[in-house]
Amino acid sequence: MTTLQTPGPTLGVVGGGQLGRMLAEAAAPLGVEVIVLDPTPDCPAALVARDQLVGDFDDEAGIRELAERADVLTFEIELADQDLLERVSEETGTPVHPRPETLRTIHDKLVQKRELREAGVPVPPFRAVDDADDVRDAIDEFGAPVMLKARTGGYDGRGNVPVESAADAEDALESVAGPAMVESFVDFEREISAIAVKGDDEVATFPVGENVHEEEILRETVVPARSSDEVLEKAEAVAADVLEVMDGRGVYGIELFETSDGEILLNEIAPRPHNSGHWTIEGAQSSQFEQHARAVLGWPLGSTTLRSPTVSTNLLGDVDEPREAALANVDRILETDGAHLHWYGKREARPLRKLGHVTVTGDGVGTDDREELLATARELRDDVTFE
Amino acid sequence: MTTLQTPGPTLGVVGGGQLGRMLAEAAAPLGVEVIVLDPTPDCPAALVARDQLVGDFDDEAGIRELAERADVLTFEIELADQDLLERVSEETGTPVHPRPETLRTIHDKLVQKRELREAGVPVPPFRAVDDADDVRDAIDEFGAPVMLKARTGGYDGRGNVPVESAADAEDALESVAGPAMVESFVDFEREISAIAVKGDDEVATFPVGENVHEEEILRETVVPARSSDEVLEKAEAVAADVLEVMDGRGVYGIELFETSDGEILLNEIAPRPHNSGHWTIEGAQSSQFEQHARAVLGWPLGSTTLRSPTVSTNLLGDVDEPREAALANVDRILETDGAHLHWYGKREARPLRKLGHVTVTGDGVGTDDREELLATARELRDDVTFE
Repeated sequence: MTTLQTPGPTLGVVGGGQLGRMLAEAAAPLGVEVIVLDPTPDCPAALVARDQLVGDFDDEAGIRELAERADVLTFEIELADQDLLERVSEETGTPVHPRPETLRTIHDKLVQKRELREAGVPVPPFRAVDDADDVRDAIDEFGAPVMLKARTGGYDGRGNVPVESAADAEDALESVAGPAMVESFVDFEREISAIAVKGDDEVATFPVGENVHEEEILRETVVPARSSDEVLEKAEAVAADVLEVMDGRGVYGIELFETSDGEILLNEIAPRPHNSGHWTIEGAQSSQFEQHARAVLGWPLGSTTLRSPTVSTNLLGDVDEPREAALANVDRILETDGAHLHWYGKREARPLRKLGHVTVTGDGVGTDDREELLATARELRDDVTFE
Repeated sequence: MTTLQTPGPTLGVVGGGQLGRMLAEAAAPLGVEVIVLDPTPDCPAALVARDQLVGDFDDEAGIRELAERADVLTFEIELADQDLLERVSEETGTPVHPRPETLRTIHDKLVQKRELREAGVPVPPFRAVDDADDVRDAIDEFGAPVMLKARTGGYDGRGNVPVESAADAEDALESVAGPAMVESFVDFEREISAIAVKGDDEVATFPVGENVHEEEILRETVVPARSSDEVLEKAEAVAADVLEVMDGRGVYGIELFETSDGEILLNEIAPRPHNSGHWTIEGAQSSQFEQHARAVLGWPLGSTTLRSPTVSTNLLGDVDEPREAALANVDRILETDGAHLHWYGKREARPLRKLGHVTVTGDGVGTDDREELLATARELRDDVTFE
């Protein structure tokens, strides 16, 4: 039986960027308090969180203080130090969700893919590589090109290097610089993702979205994905299978490929709210952030029902070099029915840095046509300028 | 041309209760910061606001500091000291919205009604009263019963005393204890309200809601009101006329009577977001709180379009005497599709104190039937208990 109180339960969050900020925004109406640990003084989440501890993500004293002040620990970055989290959690008795084991599994892409394949989740063919010979063997086996991936540390496409031919194996390995794996190159029809939630004894999945990437950074998400119903059902089933492998409560961003013959293959997993789920704030009955707060607290999950077809687009730093963040000409966004502007409160704009996003809901624009919504979102986004 | 920056513009808010809290929740995604002045340490708004200054609503040093730190001053309580606000605003150059003149007009119900009547807004027949003879004259003129109202200081029905007959005039006047006026008793079909927004050079009105009061405290709001289209149009026209009289930008809660013959009469005005507009958070494309932030900053207003028929119900302290606030058994609310729970973060539950609210959206429940939505909201509300 869930009870609301004042002060409410406190989430201790490792990382206080835009995800921590939107988590705090979503938690407040439920009386749930958020404290973040982040190295940047006055980080984005600080504005709405109860408090910020200033410290690195792997600062032991910081994690310990967070654990002592919180009822449950969680994180907005998968680079959190899983061993430290586990140790502090054991010492303080404050649980961590998702579980550090899950973080450990996801952290190493090779381990991740092995565990998922074992559990019956469809993944692209892959193999570990130790040297250039292994890369060349993989090309022989899968056919060129292949995707060479750093086993740890990569995100937003960093650490992923396509290898076109055997002659490029050595250079590619050098650029990855560390333990690596090779995946067969997936000839995908589209990239889609499922935002899934694991609760205390229940799971839920938001409608599957379609992701448009450029330079390996997410630009837009279109919901529902413009796939067949059959493909969407398959994707949801894969998401459910992935959740079986994940240990611990919380939101998981599950990135998938839809292949040209309508099959689903797992691409990446983020054990946290995901950029491709920001549309849920206005597009679904409850947001991925509210769901994450509910899940890690062990509260009942909310509804993942779509309110209307929805498109979100990132506002990326359109600057040549770092400068003060200022987004001009937002009037059209503010004035457009169904357009919702989110600013993350970062002080510095950097090239392609995520500074905010815009969500456009069909019921506001007055159409269910996803092409039209996507066109509207792009127009609004292309209208703004970085001063 | 509107620009978002970090740190963003700051709203200085006199009062940090639930309205200030929901204002801060709505302002954060736009990068707008909120500082509140409130006498209760760790007031409800403190959780999500940038900062709280602890001080009385009429604390001159507090108001001055608020003005110095903010780009614009506003208030969540109409009891704010209008003269002090005006003086500090002049001295510091920080504007106040809505304008103190408006606060002054609204503050005295007699002045308010006179100005509105003069502007052509339909109001119930009224007259000033100085003594019991005047009350008796009013009964002769309007017919019994009449409503005796304190000219200043009343809200949530406080300071309103029905007078059934001439014999009760003296007792009624004594209980009001101060300058008073008499209004003709309105035989209303229903109480409705329009949440209206005055921007820089534009106005907007949310769909008109229907309010169910008990013991003069708002219990539920049903949107759209179950009135004829003709009546709703009249109500919106009256709201527009009211805005003409109001000076300064911001949200106004305009409470109206729909009489049994389909006429509209003005009841009360609140120069701030209003309890009967809480449904807008999930039920409209932008909320009354986001609109208030936009309006006082002089930004373009957002869309007031209805997302789906919606009902909200207050969670009032169901306790015999003050005690720690704890709301048990909220699981059904958390689990119901389309139900949205808001907890205000007050530490103490008092009899009939507003501690939170629940909004139920038709698109979540799966019906546009307002009777059904109202029944669902009431069931959910009646399920919770104060521990």
